[in-house]
Amino acid sequence: MQVYLDNAATTKMSKSAINAMLPYMDGIYGNPSSLHSAGQKASEALVGARERIARLLGCEAREITFTSGGSEADNQAIISAARIGGKKGKKHIISTTFEHHAVLHTLNRLEKEGFEITLLDVHENGIVLPGQVAEAIREDTCLVTIMYANNEIGTIQPVREIGAVCRERGVLFHTDAVQAAGHLPINVREQNIDMLSLSAHKFHGPKGIGVLYAKKGILLSNLIEGGAQERGKRAGTENIPAIMGMTAALEEAYSHINENTEKITALRDRLIAGISEIPHSILNGDAKKRLPGNVNFCFEGIEGESLLLLLDGKGVFASSGSACTSGSLEPSHVLLAIGRVHDIAHGSLRLSLSDENTEEEIDYTIETVKNVVEYLRGMSPVWRDLINGKKEFIIK
Amino acid sequence: MQVYLDNAATTKMSKSAINAMLPYMDGIYGNPSSLHSAGQKASEALVGARERIARLLGCEAREITFTSGGSEADNQAIISAARIGGKKGKKHIISTTFEHHAVLHTLNRLEKEGFEITLLDVHENGIVLPGQVAEAIREDTCLVTIMYANNEIGTIQPVREIGAVCRERGVLFHTDAVQAAGHLPINVREQNIDMLSLSAHKFHGPKGIGVLYAKKGILLSNLIEGGAQERGKRAGTENIPAIMGMTAALEEAYSHINENTEKITALRDRLIAGISEIPHSILNGDAKKRLPGNVNFCFEGIEGESLLLLLDGKGVFASSGSACTSGSLEPSHVLLAIGRVHDIAHGSLRLSLSDENTEEEIDYTIETVKNVVEYLRGMSPVWRDLINGKKEFIIK
Repeated sequence: MQVYLDNAATTKMSKSAINAMLPYMDGIYGNPSSLHSAGQKASEALVGARERIARLLGCEAREITFTSGGSEADNQAIISAARIGGKKGKKHIISTTFEHHAVLHTLNRLEKEGFEITLLDVHENGIVLPGQVAEAIREDTCLVTIMYANNEIGTIQPVREIGAVCRERGVLFHTDAVQAAGHLPINVREQNIDMLSLSAHKFHGPKGIGVLYAKKGILLSNLIEGGAQERGKRAGTENIPAIMGMTAALEEAYSHINENTEKITALRDRLIAGISEIPHSILNGDAKKRLPGNVNFCFEGIEGESLLLLLDGKGVFASSGSACTSGSLEPSHVLLAIGRVHDIAHGSLRLSLSDENTEEEIDYTIETVKNVVEYLRGMSPVWRDLINGKKEFIIK
Repeated sequence: MQVYLDNAATTKMSKSAINAMLPYMDGIYGNPSSLHSAGQKASEALVGARERIARLLGCEAREITFTSGGSEADNQAIISAARIGGKKGKKHIISTTFEHHAVLHTLNRLEKEGFEITLLDVHENGIVLPGQVAEAIREDTCLVTIMYANNEIGTIQPVREIGAVCRERGVLFHTDAVQAAGHLPINVREQNIDMLSLSAHKFHGPKGIGVLYAKKGILLSNLIEGGAQERGKRAGTENIPAIMGMTAALEEAYSHINENTEKITALRDRLIAGISEIPHSILNGDAKKRLPGNVNFCFEGIEGESLLLLLDGKGVFASSGSACTSGSLEPSHVLLAIGRVHDIAHGSLRLSLSDENTEEEIDYTIETVKNVVEYLRGMSPVWRDLINGKKEFIIK
């Protein structure tokens, strides 16, 4: 059996997303900037896609900028807010300790330029509180950037309430919704969101395409200079096939969101219950306020990489955390942020589900994880020390 | 009859490029950063594609960075060279007056940061001379960026010779090869090129993907911060389907380059000969040192936009210049650069061919352009003044 449980890293494209792309890869291939009818057909598709995406997010078409993905959108949102703030002498930005590196590394860059960054604690449950944001906002704060749902532990942040705090204090609020889009409800107006990033390949759309929503009136700074595409704010010939695929995928996701949430949440809770039976294991992040498809555990006495490789051998495709930093020897900054110590943070397992998974797959996964953990512990000197009482268990 | 003659704006994807993408949109969808075998299959594809692209360009795989397209690659190349130069106090950059806006606008940005920019004259034939570069290089020059072939008038620059001058003087040489890649020979080692940008959709590959070649030892600056993809120099999940499509398209282009060049050049020259028969018309750019597929004319007494719309009505899909700036009321900066006056630069027509065009299409196009030009002149008050001697012809 093969069980793909790495949907937070990337998803399989849906048939409807592929079918939405194909006509624009083949017949309708014009450049939307061209005046002739081959170009105008592409241009109409682009206009239509922008309107459809705007409708799904609860904003206006002109507030949508197409980017090459979530990282680009995060970078552009934060840099833009920093430039706007910088001009007014406001050089303080608030974020959290467990953001994606697309956010944290951009903040590092700004710090070197003289911005001051406050990273809020996310507590053991992986959730930041609106009150923390309110307390951290200063006269010179130009941006609050807090992710909608965490990419490793899936915890959902109270974006609407955080947005309300920001709006009251006149501070821009950006949310990295790369893990949330297509999986959690989004309405940028109702949720008080000024800027939002998303990436199509996280909701069964194509790779290489994303969206930056920016409320009208927010002047975007270009990351990529050149042609006048995207109202002059993002140069480069528009990737119409990918835009059409993304639009179809996002529409599909939101048209099935209730039934998918119900189905996937049930599978997730079954998986969590099964894996929790493993002694000295701990679920990372709040048990309920998390993405329907996210499961993340630490196991005492286990090396994350060996776990993944053995699971792979049994056909279970999982991850230890963010795919973007795999290969790194550093323990996950997300797990450290929720207070896991280095030893434990190394032995994490992320299983991320989609609506294509079945109960049978989940049961097979539970069984396989149990066996593999037992097998690895059988070979682990650390585990021997733990059960012999020479070392103390961290996870009780 | 429908004749697509806007291949400089974008091309129809080849069957082999589409077929190379499909398996990675459907079955092999893993994230190459994932450790499991679904990810590793994607990773192997990525490694293979990088090697194949490197082989086609005459460089090493580690010198290839995948970007979202030509504009991003141009931006990153120039910003990187500027950062390298800036650290050594070298803040002078040489380019030409008729580069693509992805280059010129990036240079504008650097000018605001304190860089000094020298734009070389490209003469009436649209070709810059290596001697001009040699003369312009100063002690504080950090970069020469000159396009391989111009996107509007197709003129080919002596990149090898310019590269040799730069190498001798220890100055980095970048070339925007967006129009050249797949259409003109490229070997970065033999041509003394330190950095090169290309875009797949200009050679029958997919949109939204490009390459930045940077010689080993050149430290790239990130435009997009985040994950550790592309050796940490370009964050964001790799767009494997597009990378596979681009690789197939570039291989296909270079495997047929001789026969395509011969065929397309013959069609081009037939088109040039036919359109030259129109009185008071002039070919823009050198008649021979131009892309096999590029034809660009100015017509006295004609508005470029009306010409395009009437041609479109007859099924001929053409352009007035760069697609990226269409809709702009400004005359083409390229035509101004080769000395065309405003009145004439407004009335330009770019016809850009591919190997899919036929003699029959070319003959139909010649006939159609002749008729449309005659028709428009019949309605033009400017033309009446010209033939009545009330105004002087600029194009004799």
